Amino acid sequence: MLPSMIPARIIEEKRDGRTLEPSALAAFLEGYFRGEVPDYQMAAFLMAAYLRGLDDGETDVLVRCMLESGSTLDLSHLPGPRVDKHSTGGIGDKVSLVLAPLAAELGLFVPMIAGRGLAHTGGTLDKLEAIPGFRTDLSVTRFKEVVRRVGCAIMGQTQEIAPLDRRLYAMRDVTGTVSSIPLIAASIMSKKLAEGLTGLLLDVKVGSGAFMPEEERAQELAEKMVAIGRARGLPTVALLTAMDRPLGVAVGNGLETEEAIECLRGQGPADLREIVLAEAAEMLRLGNPGLAAPDALRRADAALGSGEPLERFRRLIEAQGGDGSIVDRPERLRTAAVRAEVRAEAGGTVLEVAPRPLGEAMIALGGGRTMMHQPIDPGVGFEVRVRPGDAIGRGGLLGVVHAKDEAGLQLGAATLRSVVRMGAAGDVVVRRPLLGRRVPPTESPAES
Amino acid sequence: MLPSMIPARIIEEKRDGRTLEPSALAAFLEGYFRGEVPDYQMAAFLMAAYLRGLDDGETDVLVRCMLESGSTLDLSHLPGPRVDKHSTGGIGDKVSLVLAPLAAELGLFVPMIAGRGLAHTGGTLDKLEAIPGFRTDLSVTRFKEVVRRVGCAIMGQTQEIAPLDRRLYAMRDVTGTVSSIPLIAASIMSKKLAEGLTGLLLDVKVGSGAFMPEEERAQELAEKMVAIGRARGLPTVALLTAMDRPLGVAVGNGLETEEAIECLRGQGPADLREIVLAEAAEMLRLGNPGLAAPDALRRADAALGSGEPLERFRRLIEAQGGDGSIVDRPERLRTAAVRAEVRAEAGGTVLEVAPRPLGEAMIALGGGRTMMHQPIDPGVGFEVRVRPGDAIGRGGLLGVVHAKDEAGLQLGAATLRSVVRMGAAGDVVVRRPLLGRRVPPTESPAES
Repeated sequence: MLPSMIPARIIEEKRDGRTLEPSALAAFLEGYFRGEVPDYQMAAFLMAAYLRGLDDGETDVLVRCMLESGSTLDLSHLPGPRVDKHSTGGIGDKVSLVLAPLAAELGLFVPMIAGRGLAHTGGTLDKLEAIPGFRTDLSVTRFKEVVRRVGCAIMGQTQEIAPLDRRLYAMRDVTGTVSSIPLIAASIMSKKLAEGLTGLLLDVKVGSGAFMPEEERAQELAEKMVAIGRARGLPTVALLTAMDRPLGVAVGNGLETEEAIECLRGQGPADLREIVLAEAAEMLRLGNPGLAAPDALRRADAALGSGEPLERFRRLIEAQGGDGSIVDRPERLRTAAVRAEVRAEAGGTVLEVAPRPLGEAMIALGGGRTMMHQPIDPGVGFEVRVRPGDAIGRGGLLGVVHAKDEAGLQLGAATLRSVVRMGAAGDVVVRRPLLGRRVPPTESPAES
Repeated sequence: MLPSMIPARIIEEKRDGRTLEPSALAAFLEGYFRGEVPDYQMAAFLMAAYLRGLDDGETDVLVRCMLESGSTLDLSHLPGPRVDKHSTGGIGDKVSLVLAPLAAELGLFVPMIAGRGLAHTGGTLDKLEAIPGFRTDLSVTRFKEVVRRVGCAIMGQTQEIAPLDRRLYAMRDVTGTVSSIPLIAASIMSKKLAEGLTGLLLDVKVGSGAFMPEEERAQELAEKMVAIGRARGLPTVALLTAMDRPLGVAVGNGLETEEAIECLRGQGPADLREIVLAEAAEMLRLGNPGLAAPDALRRADAALGSGEPLERFRRLIEAQGGDGSIVDRPERLRTAAVRAEVRAEAGGTVLEVAPRPLGEAMIALGGGRTMMHQPIDPGVGFEVRVRPGDAIGRGGLLGVVHAKDEAGLQLGAATLRSVVRMGAAGDVVVRRPLLGRRVPPTESPAES
């Protein structure tokens, strides 16, 4: 700790809305990491930062201290660009499972460190672990080996990466200081910056099922993260994508993995495919700065159609201890004991399919968690067969509930009925464009 | 803890500026006091409360929880009104030493629980302890006995009174959450409400030497404290008094006690006497609701002139183990090893005598403290012989420094010179009226 760093003074400065000196803020954060600044002072600081904000310079100091608190992957030996994608999370978001092998097929290396589901959102690790034998707790050595050999690997957060972020997150979680844009942005970016990337794509979800539902706040988060990446020399692009309805049909860990495999076969829901191709194209351009957007999209489309990404996913699964034959028979992921169709009680136009209650119902069904380390049932979930704008008749299929027992079916059916809001035929349906804004805007020459 | 009380939700509510349910806030505070809510959650809450405020209902819950965390003095057996005065603290504020015996002489019982000096402000306990043998660490039993027998007693905070306030204060002190009006008001009032009073006078200092320098904030603090007292059934009045210059001549523990004794003799500085009489009259009216203000002031003036309060002060000193003969020879309190006069280098009009640097210099002279429990030298200090508005000639006496050594004299002289800001003869001098606003205003019929 610098002799001049008095924790209470730092807290007061932030409380009063002043901008902290980089060296003073760094000394405070480092003092906390070393155990010299107590939790209660950090808690007061976090609340002051939540309410008063952190500017770009302060956020950069926070990111740097998080990053330097742990180690960074060195992947510089890989013979190609290293590009990852991070999503802020939503309902039915199985994009990473398709994107990692597809991007690898396009010549990128994808060292993806992913998360678990918590509260209403699902997590990539949980979806992969629905595959028998699949391990996400790789050693860093093994992870690097899989990336090198397969072109992509997906593992959980390690103790070595950004341990200060982990401690701050645990503190934020119990002090009402989670949903602060600079704190979220710093937390995400510190982990991504530790992956040794040459490019990063951010998928920032917008809408009622997103962590940051309002467009303006989502945009702000996207801009903040892009600014952090660029300030630290990592070319970063963000896409705002729709989360005012579930993505794709499947909601539930095993069901989503099945749907990801369908997408890798060139099948599956159109919205999932559209997002996957758009994001693969962005990743490709991050890895190949000269490439024009239409060319990138064409290459992504061709690669997905070739069937090779599916084979690469099989190799990824096998390299991580899983049963690769799942890609041939993904319906084996449907392990729920019971299932039931849910049908419309009256006909009309679907005005809304609210995503968040589906995610929350997953917890009650046993397929989601409210606390870290809670075990989950990968088989349960929903197939959501309607989209906003669809016209359906009385008795038309709304979806299918997968549950472990009759009570789960009842709950799931009630949830599915409640999330589908029907209007009269011809009612105007307002929904977000699937692909929203890009940060920076596509026109910007600074993007590459 | 109520099962429905989730600390992080309480923190979030306050963070978002919402008003907390009384039962939820109480459960949070009680949970903290019992050790079920950790310090870091309280720290985050305090910062949220600092920045978002607490309304009157929330402040009342805080006061009640503080009060109920400890015990309350039962003085109902005393045959008369029980009225105390509390000052928010300033430079040269020795009013309590005069007021306690004077109010007792007027038929009130004064169970005064006072504080020590910290940072730039002095404390009543330190001033009394300049008297040889004087003890302020009385047992509650002894304290009550002295109040009954002498009419007044002055002791330090006990462990039994408002222990939750003590814990919260310690937490605020290290988390940048001290200077919040509702938190300050609740802290002061919880202790005063525990004294078993029938009336309370608050002396809220205003000006650069005060804890709350700005008039508007001081007024807000006064109103908040008066509202708390009245909400809990304690008739409470506040006076705003000037602290843009030192009060009286003496600044320093022993010197101030000497000056208090002079005032009890009907001598001493006019400003001290004016404050003492105004406050004694307010206390008298709090104890005798029908009494008109001019009558109260006349009675206070007559009592001070009678010499009886001085004799009562002697009995107070003796009852608390001190050498009562000090009232006959208060100059024995001048124990500093060296002293030196400081004279004006040029003539003119005194525009300002800044109080705060004098208080801060006290620490360097050895007569103040930066941390609780630091021992102090009662002999050192200043006699400030000029007031804003005085015209003085070159070589005129600015004051006298009392120090323990030559280095102290140098420092004290430099301080004294720097705090006296001189202007040309005829310059307009702006200073606060000694007695500022009253809360409630004098006209209000609700005051009694």
